[in-house]
Amino acid sequence: MPQELRAVDWTGSSLALIDQTALPHRTETREIRDVDGLVDAIQRLVVRGAPAIGAAGAYGVALALLQGEREGWSAEETQAAVARVRAARPTAVNLMVCVDRVMARFDEGLDAVLAEAAAVQREDVEANRAMGAYGADWLVKKVGVVDRPLRVLTHCNTGALATAGWGTALGVIRELHARGLVEVVYADETRPLLQGSRLTAWELVQEGIPHYVQADGAAAGTILRGEVDAAIVGADRIAANGDTANKVGTVGVALACADAGIPFLVAAPTTTVDLATATGADIHIELRGEDEILEWSGVRTAPAESRGHNPAFDVTPGRLVTGLVTERGVLEISVGELPAHHLR
Amino acid sequence: MPQELRAVDWTGSSLALIDQTALPHRTETREIRDVDGLVDAIQRLVVRGAPAIGAAGAYGVALALLQGEREGWSAEETQAAVARVRAARPTAVNLMVCVDRVMARFDEGLDAVLAEAAAVQREDVEANRAMGAYGADWLVKKVGVVDRPLRVLTHCNTGALATAGWGTALGVIRELHARGLVEVVYADETRPLLQGSRLTAWELVQEGIPHYVQADGAAAGTILRGEVDAAIVGADRIAANGDTANKVGTVGVALACADAGIPFLVAAPTTTVDLATATGADIHIELRGEDEILEWSGVRTAPAESRGHNPAFDVTPGRLVTGLVTERGVLEISVGELPAHHLR
Repeated sequence: MPQELRAVDWTGSSLALIDQTALPHRTETREIRDVDGLVDAIQRLVVRGAPAIGAAGAYGVALALLQGEREGWSAEETQAAVARVRAARPTAVNLMVCVDRVMARFDEGLDAVLAEAAAVQREDVEANRAMGAYGADWLVKKVGVVDRPLRVLTHCNTGALATAGWGTALGVIRELHARGLVEVVYADETRPLLQGSRLTAWELVQEGIPHYVQADGAAAGTILRGEVDAAIVGADRIAANGDTANKVGTVGVALACADAGIPFLVAAPTTTVDLATATGADIHIELRGEDEILEWSGVRTAPAESRGHNPAFDVTPGRLVTGLVTERGVLEISVGELPAHHLR
Repeated sequence: MPQELRAVDWTGSSLALIDQTALPHRTETREIRDVDGLVDAIQRLVVRGAPAIGAAGAYGVALALLQGEREGWSAEETQAAVARVRAARPTAVNLMVCVDRVMARFDEGLDAVLAEAAAVQREDVEANRAMGAYGADWLVKKVGVVDRPLRVLTHCNTGALATAGWGTALGVIRELHARGLVEVVYADETRPLLQGSRLTAWELVQEGIPHYVQADGAAAGTILRGEVDAAIVGADRIAANGDTANKVGTVGVALACADAGIPFLVAAPTTTVDLATATGADIHIELRGEDEILEWSGVRTAPAESRGHNPAFDVTPGRLVTGLVTERGVLEISVGELPAHHLR
């Protein structure tokens, strides 16, 4: 993948987002000039992935300032617009954290806000690179296979598209691949929106990493048959006890890894850890529209009378998380509380 | 649902199959007059579900006899044609068992063959009714909830469409519903072919049973959040140690039930138990075409360069099966071997 791939890019006066709803068929960029456009892009998943949404939210403060100047908003009106960006999706903590970080410099004006947003983006890429190296080191040691490259499974998309650049879980896989240590990646397709088959597979093709796309339901069987050495996933919010909210389907992967005795590694920057949330039970799980389940490309697949149940995320209990890799290293959190001093 | 619904019906000279690839949009019947047509219908899943395939295979012997008469086949040629029907799909044992049972009367001629096939079909419906009652009794007692109806989860389709009539796992649910004991059914959509959203939901609508369709990946989270009282699934082949092959995605449901401490009930006639197969590792898992994963309605969803991994089934270890209900009662097989004397 070209190093310059940016899911989220500041043009100088607007935000350029790779339209992730159009991939893998078309690589199109949407130029976002106002708050309504950004909220819509976040909610329709034009931009998705907790760190990428965080970066988009950070620049959203700048968008609100520019729009406020154009439209003569009061400071309160601009702040209200920023609050709409901050609340555009409820589960990932990165959006709130990144918006709040940039808003701390709101009173200093546009240049300070843009500098902070750029720092958010730059630090996310640096964090991804660091967790890629830490995660790869840990995984190789933990799996303990020395005579062949590894077979890894991932769920949803956690690559350059999902972040400010490089990737979290997919960043670990990219690092493993750079070391010649990837035999094959099993990419769960990730229903209902197919982030796995559309986005992860697209990134794996760009990187030349051998991979299979499989139904989400196939993951547990593939793991239990011994065809996988480790699973690596991202996170949208991690509670203080290690409970991890991530794309729906993740906890099923974790249960299978625990049963098979293989590592289940969560890769996420420390900004994804929310020490103010005690346990997974306190994480608000976004329920998305029923039509994502009941239709395909606008064509109904279930009977007209059927209802859909569409939680976008699930919570993996901390006891099932073998390791959590952040930009600071790997925590083995299968049991017990996260060490707050490590994460603050 | 009208009592006369028959996924598989003998017309007197041909086999009428409800085309399950056209549901839920169109209820169409395909008339099958020869062995090629039957093999194609089984492989394309016009008829699917282990017991329904078994019934279709039973009548397939009659089709082969009639075609052999028309086309002047030798007995060996007719037997070779029957062998093609018997091998049309590899995982479900019912197809082999039912074909072999009818073939035992091959030398007696068409009337005997048809009588045996009709007996296969009649006995399957009777078995389904019996396992519905046994399963409902056991589940109510096992769940132990007395102040409200139950919330049950199922995977794939195991209803009248999947059997000679009534249903196995869905037959238990229909029996519970008839007793006023179903609050809601969570029907996993069952990727890649959506037997859950297309077929199970269609049957649940016919029966007026409240239900949600959900992504397969949502099942584990729904169970772990405490929104489900029990899961009930069918089986394609059960090994002597209780290991159960069923539609891909089933073992993930079983792992979640075990973790949540709720019953995981397998409903299948004793003909699905294959005592000649020692463990799940000996069950041949059908790998279906990659395009079922990589395309949707003929439109590619993954990059052109991606490969697909498409096992049609997985194996749930017997230790995860809380109960197995057959037409003879419920075996609690979470630990240990199946009692062969009960099943022969």
